[in-house]
Amino acid sequence: MNSRRASPLQAGKLPAASASPWRASRERRRDREVKREAVIRAAARAFNHKGYHNTSLDDIAATLEVTKPTVYYYVSNKEQLLFQCFLAGVEQIRAAFREVKDLEAPARERLKAVLRHYGEAMASEFGWCMVRAEDQDLSPAMSRHIKALKSEIDQGIRRLIREGIQDGSIEPCDPKMTAFALAGALNWIAHWYRENQSLTGAEIASAFVTIFEGGLRPRSASQVAPRAPLRRRVRIAR
Amino acid sequence: MNSRRASPLQAGKLPAASASPWRASRERRRDREVKREAVIRAAARAFNHKGYHNTSLDDIAATLEVTKPTVYYYVSNKEQLLFQCFLAGVEQIRAAFREVKDLEAPARERLKAVLRHYGEAMASEFGWCMVRAEDQDLSPAMSRHIKALKSEIDQGIRRLIREGIQDGSIEPCDPKMTAFALAGALNWIAHWYRENQSLTGAEIASAFVTIFEGGLRPRSASQVAPRAPLRRRVRIAR
Repeated sequence: MNSRRASPLQAGKLPAASASPWRASRERRRDREVKREAVIRAAARAFNHKGYHNTSLDDIAATLEVTKPTVYYYVSNKEQLLFQCFLAGVEQIRAAFREVKDLEAPARERLKAVLRHYGEAMASEFGWCMVRAEDQDLSPAMSRHIKALKSEIDQGIRRLIREGIQDGSIEPCDPKMTAFALAGALNWIAHWYRENQSLTGAEIASAFVTIFEGGLRPRSASQVAPRAPLRRRVRIAR
Repeated sequence: MNSRRASPLQAGKLPAASASPWRASRERRRDREVKREAVIRAAARAFNHKGYHNTSLDDIAATLEVTKPTVYYYVSNKEQLLFQCFLAGVEQIRAAFREVKDLEAPARERLKAVLRHYGEAMASEFGWCMVRAEDQDLSPAMSRHIKALKSEIDQGIRRLIREGIQDGSIEPCDPKMTAFALAGALNWIAHWYRENQSLTGAEIASAFVTIFEGGLRPRSASQVAPRAPLRRRVRIAR
């Protein structure tokens, strides 16, 4: 799954050979969607680089070489724009949850797929908005909406961990703390990752999932793990 | 080890029975240190609750029931105060590095001890300042200082991971990515943890280290891990 593959930006590249009389209106809708997406991406990049409060709708309009009223045609205000950026990132994670929902795979594999998309979203231009939206003096309604979506994702991760403990693919652990640890590691990507680094977002997400792997090893592996190395442990006074 | 055990706040509770002529000046120094520490703790709590820009030195003085000049006696300005809060947290981690430096324990155990103190620092009142100091429009010199200290800790974690790979106590991995994942999970504690929750900072730090454990399992454990569960994997299309 790659949410960008199905995006209007990509779909616009397909040959438009249909003779349907609805083609023109479909194309207009698609065109509008392409432009709306461009506004959101430009805003996400600006918020990321200059901060939310230091970015004006004028700045975003200038980046796109359009007037401010053009930007207002797609979003009603800056807060809405930030929310749309937040949503664009979060939607990638929600799509991953939907995609794995009916898979026959052990919960551990479904969790890994979700975490991979989570990591990619955090390394995308939307990462900053996803982790910082809540700090920006938003309206109470907007704050509640953002909190609810974050909670939905947190609960989804905990549920997959619980299912993994149940199907034996994840070693018994505290689902809440484990979800916080996994999400925290991934959220932090938005703080240190900048595009054009040596690794792509997908490679970082994949590396993180590999790091998490061992920590979520199947129960059977831990049962046969040799205890010998533990004897070498030196108790460290705290 | 507990850095607070050695703090002047605690030391002040010892009976001051010495007859040394230097006692009075030592006590004055200690008294000054106790007060300086109270100013820093009050500032850390205020920055955490209200944000750096929304907190004035007047607010901090009011919390301590002193005048603003009294606060200025201990720190020269608000930026310095933020830096002292940052330093108070970071110092707990640096102390942990110093403490494990000459231990005979495998690097994995030394790393765990450092991560435990790291997590405790993040769950303390200094956590917010540690992860947010850099975002506060600081002077270039201050920013460089903070970056250098963060880098020192990052390099220290990577070094322990490399040593663990070398002594066989940590499974071969990418030290840089692994350090980012571990630190990210711990840094995020400062975002979600509030005092007076059901778990103390020490309990959270300990829970996180347990979660990390499996991910850093000794090489010998992975060699004997059964491959059977892997066969159940269903390839998830991306």
